Amino acid sequence: MEMLKKAIEGIRPIDPEIGPKLQRRLDFLTKPPGSLGRIEELALWYGSARGEIKPVLGKKAVAVFAADHGIAAEGVSAYPKEVTAQMVYNFLRGGAAINAIARQIGADVVVVDIGVDHDFQPVSGLRIRKVAKGTANMISGPAMSREEALKAVSEGIVLAQELGQKGGDLIATGEMGIGNTTPSSAIASVLTGHPVSGVTGRGTGLDDPRMLAKIEKIEAAIRINHPDPADPLDVLAKVGGFEIAALTGLILGAASQRIPVVLDGFISGAAALVAVRLSPRVLNYLLASHQSVEPGHRLILENLGLHPLLDLNLRLGEGTGAVLGMGFVETSVRILSEMATFDEAGVSGKEA
Amino acid sequence: MEMLKKAIEGIRPIDPEIGPKLQRRLDFLTKPPGSLGRIEELALWYGSARGEIKPVLGKKAVAVFAADHGIAAEGVSAYPKEVTAQMVYNFLRGGAAINAIARQIGADVVVVDIGVDHDFQPVSGLRIRKVAKGTANMISGPAMSREEALKAVSEGIVLAQELGQKGGDLIATGEMGIGNTTPSSAIASVLTGHPVSGVTGRGTGLDDPRMLAKIEKIEAAIRINHPDPADPLDVLAKVGGFEIAALTGLILGAASQRIPVVLDGFISGAAALVAVRLSPRVLNYLLASHQSVEPGHRLILENLGLHPLLDLNLRLGEGTGAVLGMGFVETSVRILSEMATFDEAGVSGKEA
Repeated sequence: MEMLKKAIEGIRPIDPEIGPKLQRRLDFLTKPPGSLGRIEELALWYGSARGEIKPVLGKKAVAVFAADHGIAAEGVSAYPKEVTAQMVYNFLRGGAAINAIARQIGADVVVVDIGVDHDFQPVSGLRIRKVAKGTANMISGPAMSREEALKAVSEGIVLAQELGQKGGDLIATGEMGIGNTTPSSAIASVLTGHPVSGVTGRGTGLDDPRMLAKIEKIEAAIRINHPDPADPLDVLAKVGGFEIAALTGLILGAASQRIPVVLDGFISGAAALVAVRLSPRVLNYLLASHQSVEPGHRLILENLGLHPLLDLNLRLGEGTGAVLGMGFVETSVRILSEMATFDEAGVSGKEA
Repeated sequence: MEMLKKAIEGIRPIDPEIGPKLQRRLDFLTKPPGSLGRIEELALWYGSARGEIKPVLGKKAVAVFAADHGIAAEGVSAYPKEVTAQMVYNFLRGGAAINAIARQIGADVVVVDIGVDHDFQPVSGLRIRKVAKGTANMISGPAMSREEALKAVSEGIVLAQELGQKGGDLIATGEMGIGNTTPSSAIASVLTGHPVSGVTGRGTGLDDPRMLAKIEKIEAAIRINHPDPADPLDVLAKVGGFEIAALTGLILGAASQRIPVVLDGFISGAAALVAVRLSPRVLNYLLASHQSVEPGHRLILENLGLHPLLDLNLRLGEGTGAVLGMGFVETSVRILSEMATFDEAGVSGKEA
């Protein structure tokens, strides 16, 4: 609790003078004002979060938290739960989509076992921070105790601090957990007030009957656990998951160090929703990389007032969309730091 | 004419067997089928155009054709026409947005003077292929003769051939020409049948009265020159521009070598429209990188049946959006070539 409290207290508001300064610099660059559209918005966002007019973007990292879910026993996923651990091995060997994309964008992939139901041997590249071997089945009680949830949140904060100490300037959120759109829908429903049916989708590929069953399970889990919407940690513990809790901590920990965070899709969105409910200031440090296919994701982003950068029909997770979004943040930083001004280039400005 | 005819004849249809083969490979990779959305569509597109299941993506280049426009004398742009030549110097010094973005994505920038009203000294990095010192003012006669248009088209074809010979696997279209949204609107109106007012926008930033005047000038140019919609070269010559003609040639020349082309915004779209009217097969080789702010761009893409990948409110040109789009093509190639299959990774598939 102490660590969470400190992280929240460490999140500073944005300097109101930095935005206009960044805007002036953008308008002096050799292009019609505003002609780079959302790339210019990213420059404003990143520079404001960092508090710098010519911000640098050194190390980029994507944290991929893996965990299992008791609710998976209810058949809420198209894949067997063993896939969580199998995909961790795939991440470590570099054969997953997130590895290919991170290599392209130049981001480090940090894989964390925060709650996988499998005993990993210590191996290079894997951070073993298991809180438990998966959550309990929330259909018959809370997924986690409040203490367990806090432990996972703290692990996220610690990782953000370590990445910051190593020169990390931008962090992307990633996850792996068979069944984890289910707790994400539960969190989205409780914290936004939308009915479960409006925030639940097919995940990795459920057919109609199984999606209807998924909705019923989520409704049951909320009914049985009665999470308190005014207490984000209570929601996280009762109907969340270890990777979601860890991502909440990662987001808060990054923001407390002025490290901007690029969010991936639905599961990351649920974690961001919890983080913003714990500390509204965190919103200034968040970029929504893309609009996922999951219907709950759109409602979370609307609730947060975030406008997704990309719309590519992604529904993979792992942090794939977030790392693609990082590429655009880099573009915006390059625009700020590498482009000539009208004066420098001897280019005439707009006619009166 | 001979060169154009050869390029058109050289454009091969797509092998109908390659798509299903690529789809099978995509579905064996360690991700739920289709979960990478449009990235998977790009893999299908690029692999089909190249005719390979594990296509490589070696050299990437963006061709930036620069030219002036007689119609600029009518006040259709917010910037003075000198900016065309000034920006060419900026490109050569590496200080423009396209330079910064191309450095990030790893694309070569090829700058071509295809019709700038300025005498450039021979300088490293500049390809001087001037057809004339800008087009004639199309408000009182054709912008170019048919021979001039063909010459510019040929220069585009030649550049595509040279890039192909040097190992170019992907080409992006770029341009610089003060006033060039005006001929683009004229081409869009004539070839799609939409009224000029529906395909004309603010370019680099016109206010309302000047935009209305721009519409009137375009209507006058079409009325005076009566370009024949059934003869794309006639439209290109009478109400087009040198950079648009060169881009038309570049697109045809690239397609004839099975080199896929990533289109930038409105001006590139006008060139693509001419190219597709000359040879419908070229469509298989085209990717629309983004939806520009210019209203005519949307109508051109609808007419071509192309769905833009990004929507970032860009309206700069130079090839900036196209080079950003190239990054996603690279992502799709990496997915095809770097990801493990379910078998290789020992990951369980979807449950029955």
